[in-house]
Amino acid sequence: METFSCDRPINDMFSIPSLVSWKKRSEPTVVDVSGVKVGGSDIVVIAGPCAIESREQLFETAWAVKTGGGRILRGGAFKPRSSPYNFQGLGEEGLKLLSEISRETGIPVVTEVMDTRQIDLIASYSDMIQIGSRNMQNYPLLKEAGKCRKPVLLKRGMMATIEEFLLAAEYILSQGNEQVILCERGIRTFETSTRNTLDLSAVPMLKHLTHLPVIVDPSHGTGLRWMVPSMACAAVAAGADGLIVEVHFKPEEALCDGHQSLSNEEFISMMSDLDRIALAVNRNISRT
Amino acid sequence: METFSCDRPINDMFSIPSLVSWKKRSEPTVVDVSGVKVGGSDIVVIAGPCAIESREQLFETAWAVKTGGGRILRGGAFKPRSSPYNFQGLGEEGLKLLSEISRETGIPVVTEVMDTRQIDLIASYSDMIQIGSRNMQNYPLLKEAGKCRKPVLLKRGMMATIEEFLLAAEYILSQGNEQVILCERGIRTFETSTRNTLDLSAVPMLKHLTHLPVIVDPSHGTGLRWMVPSMACAAVAAGADGLIVEVHFKPEEALCDGHQSLSNEEFISMMSDLDRIALAVNRNISRT
Amino acid sequence: METFSCDRPINDMFSIPSLVSWKKRSEPTVVDVSGVKVGGSDIVVIAGPCAIESREQLFETAWAVKTGGGRILRGGAFKPRSSPYNFQGLGEEGLKLLSEISRETGIPVVTEVMDTRQIDLIASYSDMIQIGSRNMQNYPLLKEAGKCRKPVLLKRGMMATIEEFLLAAEYILSQGNEQVILCERGIRTFETSTRNTLDLSAVPMLKHLTHLPVIVDPSHGTGLRWMVPSMACAAVAAGADGLIVEVHFKPEEALCDGHQSLSNEEFISMMSDLDRIALAVNRNISRT
Amino acid sequence: METFSCDRPINDMFSIPSLVSWKKRSEPTVVDVSGVKVGGSDIVVIAGPCAIESREQLFETAWAVKTGGGRILRGGAFKPRSSPYNFQGLGEEGLKLLSEISRETGIPVVTEVMDTRQIDLIASYSDMIQIGSRNMQNYPLLKEAGKCRKPVLLKRGMMATIEEFLLAAEYILSQGNEQVILCERGIRTFETSTRNTLDLSAVPMLKHLTHLPVIVDPSHGTGLRWMVPSMACAAVAAGADGLIVEVHFKPEEALCDGHQSLSNEEFISMMSDLDRIALAVNRNISRT
Repeated sequence: METFSCDRPINDMFSIPSLVSWKKRSEPTVVDVSGVKVGGSDIVVIAGPCAIESREQLFETAWAVKTGGGRILRGGAFKPRSSPYNFQGLGEEGLKLLSEISRETGIPVVTEVMDTRQIDLIASYSDMIQIGSRNMQNYPLLKEAGKCRKPVLLKRGMMATIEEFLLAAEYILSQGNEQVILCERGIRTFETSTRNTLDLSAVPMLKHLTHLPVIVDPSHGTGLRWMVPSMACAAVAAGADGLIVEVHFKPEEALCDGHQSLSNEEFISMMSDLDRIALAVNRNISRT
Repeated sequence: METFSCDRPINDMFSIPSLVSWKKRSEPTVVDVSGVKVGGSDIVVIAGPCAIESREQLFETAWAVKTGGGRILRGGAFKPRSSPYNFQGLGEEGLKLLSEISRETGIPVVTEVMDTRQIDLIASYSDMIQIGSRNMQNYPLLKEAGKCRKPVLLKRGMMATIEEFLLAAEYILSQGNEQVILCERGIRTFETSTRNTLDLSAVPMLKHLTHLPVIVDPSHGTGLRWMVPSMACAAVAAGADGLIVEVHFKPEEALCDGHQSLSNEEFISMMSDLDRIALAVNRNISRT
Repeated sequence: METFSCDRPINDMFSIPSLVSWKKRSEPTVVDVSGVKVGGSDIVVIAGPCAIESREQLFETAWAVKTGGGRILRGGAFKPRSSPYNFQGLGEEGLKLLSEISRETGIPVVTEVMDTRQIDLIASYSDMIQIGSRNMQNYPLLKEAGKCRKPVLLKRGMMATIEEFLLAAEYILSQGNEQVILCERGIRTFETSTRNTLDLSAVPMLKHLTHLPVIVDPSHGTGLRWMVPSMACAAVAAGADGLIVEVHFKPEEALCDGHQSLSNEEFISMMSDLDRIALAVNRNISRT
Repeated sequence: METFSCDRPINDMFSIPSLVSWKKRSEPTVVDVSGVKVGGSDIVVIAGPCAIESREQLFETAWAVKTGGGRILRGGAFKPRSSPYNFQGLGEEGLKLLSEISRETGIPVVTEVMDTRQIDLIASYSDMIQIGSRNMQNYPLLKEAGKCRKPVLLKRGMMATIEEFLLAAEYILSQGNEQVILCERGIRTFETSTRNTLDLSAVPMLKHLTHLPVIVDPSHGTGLRWMVPSMACAAVAAGADGLIVEVHFKPEEALCDGHQSLSNEEFISMMSDLDRIALAVNRNISRT
């Protein structure tokens, strides 16, 4: 009989599509989000509310993000919600608020697109467009993002292998847009004590396989506010080029994801922890 | 209709058995492995070969472990192998070698037990007994480990929830043995680019739920040698009280798990990375 | 301590959205696909190629489907492929062929839509529109399907819970379209010997929770041609209202999914096995 | 670039150990459990309570099992329970009751062994020994079962691949015992509406790869009493050689698994459904 080797060549079980791979490149891609560089030596923190709920909520949170050292503001205007009866976002009104606070604070913004018909609208208000987990294999949307001239933040599907994640990014690059940031945000497993299982091994694996920057979302990855700082530190130690975290000025009143959002104060505290970890891996947290 | 709340109280979905929980304790348990303290402020690194193969292999690796700063030596004498035709370990001959090198180097040793009939034999040669992933729900074995007066290193089953992991530990404590170290070693998911998916969120979760020390095995957790140092750093950043890593003086010749074993040199190099991360989280890597 | 009950009330852990539930209905929904009734006492078999590749391929397969007793023809014109470099389908040319063979054979057709911008085009050529696994949580697409006046075949996401599957269907119903068929097509698990793990318990579970018809796709569910007939029989025994299977006149030459496509002869043979199973559960395989 | 083929030769990704494989055999193994043949043309139903609780409970249930057509009685005396505080079984007292009712009814019995030290005791009271899911990779126990002269019912681990399941069986066969029955009992996935996910594709897959008989446990596989008959029918349609189901004379009072146990009446009703499905696949439910 052929015995089963414990040396099964795991990495050879799939091949890496060419544009995202290191085959034709020697330097990592640095994505430029209206002046903020992601993928270089500095580690970039993206922060903000899950959903834009009101001017007050967005503006107060945005100033705290800026004060704490966040370089890019996140905030959802069109929200992919499991139930049709949950808050679906403010839509274009939210995009306008996002654009206004961006000018006021001088921080670039990222927001999610879910529909090919919305991509021009969203690109007109936002410095970077996000393709969320549920749309990681929405190929028409990936192709349109590839034709768009804005950077793209691509989140890993909760059921996507590393191979599929890279193929999804390849869809974008194959249309001519190389400004893609990959985001590990937790995968679905049997474990239920956390919302998802944050797969931090995806960070060194992706850095090994692709020249694209890799960031981590510990908010969705864990679903638990108190756990976010620990996992943010772990992500930086594992080699992440950045983080995206949910921050809300009043988490207990949030319309969405309050249980996993840091308060403004918790965010500021976490940032100083991150500074120390970044130094330990010979990097810095990017500051203005 | 009742809509689905995204605030489902995840942590309330299970209750924690009493002996492992914080209910009756205010201080974390510190496990004493023949003088090496696990669970205190210092982080303990356990290292050594997957399987004991020969005197030369064990002794050369053990000295490198000691030189690099490992405090406890690991090495399997009875190996749980998926195939009956794979190398099953040296048995008692391996235990004798382990005991001999322990005296020579002054480092305590840990080795795995798989059978209730072996527990006295193994406890007589070893400073700590290990119960492996495949036996996490071997209840007779857990009970015997609970009656034993040696510390127990309990590895999480590859498909065990946090709840089941704590219940398995409770089996040991309920027999009177509180000297238990929990070890996250990767869970089984759909992802195949790594051997398992190292669930680092288990570290803060377990520290939150139990007073027992929590360590991480990045070797089995990833199955990839080059990834071990990154994930070891991430584990320390996430709050782990220790690590257990596979080291082999000639990984390419190992009879088992060579692809995930660090060479002696790689081990020594990793230890200095860990020192910096430990300091960043206000701890130290334990040294003699 | 509170012990863990093995009687945890599993079904009460989530609530069912109202429109898909039995709360306001006493009779199952029967979906009418241009005269073919799905969800009544007769079991409907949908069959055809994964992708439309050519007139010859589609037409020869379609006639075999009709001869074998298939009531609805499937065939993809726009294909969601993991890699941008794989065959993406014939597009509108494929839709025209589908429409032509439908008129010729008198069999209604179903084809997949991936983009909100395509939905009118596809609805103009097809008797039923399919929303595939990768788009199960593409909420804009679900809403557009809900506004469309054609029946919708909604496939379960490969990592979607029953709860999420029903919520996705609720999106469609909430827009006024109650003509929805649910399709179990295999979920993603750790097991790799089959392409997916066909979750046949989803059949009685869904029938228990919703009035919508439930069908099974054993082709994608297993990924193995030789296993399709066994699992098709099992699906009917479990209570499925129908099946959707891949058939190709020359599976070994298929551009997509040839390894899981039945040949015309295998399809015809399977249909007679299904007749016997259907009778054993007091139903019939629908025939013209 | 190398593109990803959808024709990845899934079945060639692992090799089958020799003793369980078809390589040296042309006929399926028929296991003889004190006169009851498992693995031949007739389908054998094993039934009984999860745990033996009392003489009355066991005896009343056993007679109902016999009346309904069950050929082998199941009942646990040593129970593997997740919590140390749950009912652990009656121990040897339970074995004595099992042996007594076996003589009274003339039905052979099967009960679980968890500890190498118990195997002789259990073999002395039981016609077949069961190795449960949690011990599927308890290699010392598998080896002892291989030295034992009794048939072995080996349940698939809830985290075990088909490959690992076959290797576990190979451990038994490699010690000289070929009387092994494989049992699919549900695997652990992300889905929580059922207790486990019953992987019925394992039935044709195992029959394809090994000459050993394959049975299904729809009680543990679903965890829901009302779903057991549907999935039992599906298992027979998929080609199972038998079933093992939990029956309790008063399910609502059961000390263990009451929510998934059939009442005596439900069992009898299910058996007549199974007769019809068995005929549809050209087999019979074995009767005395």
